[in-house]
Amino acid sequence: MPTPHYEYSKGVILKIIETLLSVEFPFGLTVRYAVKANPHPEIIKLLAEKGIMFDTSSSYEATDLLTLGIAGRAISLSSQQSPHNLPELLQAGVDFVVTSLHQLETYINTPNRRDTIAVRINPPVGYGHNNRTSTGGINSSFGIWHEYLDQVLSITKTAGIKINRIHIHFGSGADPSVWEEVAEVALAIMERVSEATVLDIGGGFKVHRFGEEKEANMPAILTMFKQKLNEFAKKTGRQLRLEIEPGTYMIAHAGILITTIDDIVDTGSEGYTFLRLNTGMNDFLRSSLYGARHKIEVITNMTTTKDYVVVGHNCESGDILTPASDNPEEIETRNLKEAKIGDEVRIYDMGAYCASMRAKGYNSFPSAPEYFVD
Amino acid sequence: MPTPHYEYSKGVILKIIETLLSVEFPFGLTVRYAVKANPHPEIIKLLAEKGIMFDTSSSYEATDLLTLGIAGRAISLSSQQSPHNLPELLQAGVDFVVTSLHQLETYINTPNRRDTIAVRINPPVGYGHNNRTSTGGINSSFGIWHEYLDQVLSITKTAGIKINRIHIHFGSGADPSVWEEVAEVALAIMERVSEATVLDIGGGFKVHRFGEEKEANMPAILTMFKQKLNEFAKKTGRQLRLEIEPGTYMIAHAGILITTIDDIVDTGSEGYTFLRLNTGMNDFLRSSLYGARHKIEVITNMTTTKDYVVVGHNCESGDILTPASDNPEEIETRNLKEAKIGDEVRIYDMGAYCASMRAKGYNSFPSAPEYFVD
Repeated sequence: MPTPHYEYSKGVILKIIETLLSVEFPFGLTVRYAVKANPHPEIIKLLAEKGIMFDTSSSYEATDLLTLGIAGRAISLSSQQSPHNLPELLQAGVDFVVTSLHQLETYINTPNRRDTIAVRINPPVGYGHNNRTSTGGINSSFGIWHEYLDQVLSITKTAGIKINRIHIHFGSGADPSVWEEVAEVALAIMERVSEATVLDIGGGFKVHRFGEEKEANMPAILTMFKQKLNEFAKKTGRQLRLEIEPGTYMIAHAGILITTIDDIVDTGSEGYTFLRLNTGMNDFLRSSLYGARHKIEVITNMTTTKDYVVVGHNCESGDILTPASDNPEEIETRNLKEAKIGDEVRIYDMGAYCASMRAKGYNSFPSAPEYFVD
Repeated sequence: MPTPHYEYSKGVILKIIETLLSVEFPFGLTVRYAVKANPHPEIIKLLAEKGIMFDTSSSYEATDLLTLGIAGRAISLSSQQSPHNLPELLQAGVDFVVTSLHQLETYINTPNRRDTIAVRINPPVGYGHNNRTSTGGINSSFGIWHEYLDQVLSITKTAGIKINRIHIHFGSGADPSVWEEVAEVALAIMERVSEATVLDIGGGFKVHRFGEEKEANMPAILTMFKQKLNEFAKKTGRQLRLEIEPGTYMIAHAGILITTIDDIVDTGSEGYTFLRLNTGMNDFLRSSLYGARHKIEVITNMTTTKDYVVVGHNCESGDILTPASDNPEEIETRNLKEAKIGDEVRIYDMGAYCASMRAKGYNSFPSAPEYFVD
């Protein structure tokens, strides 16, 4: 099969679903897949078959899912931008999460609206490995600032609408103690919204891709949430359902990008040896954008290794696949099996935010197609 | 006309062409447009009518131009990746620039090859506002490392091929003294390639988009090159033609992105006020990728101003249009006319590397279309 191309495994996704559903929640657990991570129709259909629900980030994404045949009641829409077709989406059964006071006012005056609404609150703190992946706190434009909660309660009360779900998203993290703090901040907000029955803590469950990165221990995190919800029930008498919105966690490990070494060049004894791949930022942007590091493997019988800088095929110096940790401004060498032109190179953990977030068509290169191996 | 959309001006492009052709070169000047900056067919056709030649960065881009009806002899191909159809491109008259020793060996054994070749040399120094836009020196994978020039000369001599053009690209810069240094390094390399008749110094001519940024003074830079080439002719008896490959300089000022404020949110008295636009990194990646800053204007009758952070509509915290200078990890406020939801917002100098380099389709948003206003 020609390279570059993405290979996805449904088997890996099914195992992750098992992990996510392994903890029994007394008041229920909804797993919503963050569709923007990878909206491939085969993935959407597989998840729907397994009872996974969907979190969409634009009205276009929600509409695409309806077109695919996904039931509206399985879709939640939480978007920075006002939906272009909210009445139709509501009519189809899509759940709407307002992410601003303006969206709340619009919803109240929208045909087909229900007597309930979900609200995204921007909490006082945020986590994430840098500003670009942190989605809470004063630097974040996502959700309604927590100080305006009383205003939200007053507006909904006047309109005769009940807030059934609170969505609070903190950003990316693996540290369980951080998630415990998340739970406490979230439940403090839930206490103030006495009518809410669902706590939606969003996504941001980190996976291990390279080096010292830590993967979120989902059973431990879910068990912690279960305990907190039990304590909350004892304290308040309210039995809250939990919602989580994994994107990366659901799909990152299920994808590989298969590429070929197109060329090998070097900059002399004081310089570097570069593997030029037949793919790049037009297929895969995370390294250029975040300095994200992925495991890279040269497929060869060679046993010797060598230090390489791995670069993409785009005429753009930022098109590097081995950036320094969290610093896409700097290159880093990677010790790989000794390579020759024509060798296959596999880049791992490419299921999430790779095919869906790429500088498509840059340098007029065709886009790497996506296939399923199982 | 619905927003978001790009508006391009052919009039602006024509004026820039005039500037670029304003300096008379005794031994000739070729202006090649770096197509990757914006491959819109209308732009390509306009430039072709005005006698501008083309620099393409992939064999796909070169093929697209041939399909558009551009003559092969007007097209040069300089690509990180080996062309997928080199014999056909050579047959059509496309000029090939080898960017590695492997590409040189391949060229020698390619049907339809000529007895001449252009070679891209990676010079010992590079400029650019950061590693991501610097394209020379040991950190760069572009071109054949200058220390291997003797090897190149030996290979071409053995094959009976003459090097007619040397391409040396240093990266982005505005400082005329830097360009003088570029000229000296480039001419020192030209001295060693006695058969070469064309010096191609690539692009990297910076434009002013925001704040303290300096725009390259092209007449001054070209006049400096003219003097250097005259001195070179006196010293060596060789009359060199100059080639330049402007992309940003040719087209950046000719484009505006027209958007609408979809929402305004804030994070309280200690926080920020955010303008959420109905566009974002799926239409425009430079700010998220480089921390690039563009002039932003709110179209309103208001005379009061306010500090805003301007963000995109994608569910991605890095989708910011007002990053700190050269630091996309940090947000910065911009003092703009006081805005309300629904106001039009214009983002300037969006002709180059905007529509052509975007995370197309991310969050399933449709792509902003491109129109010409003149």
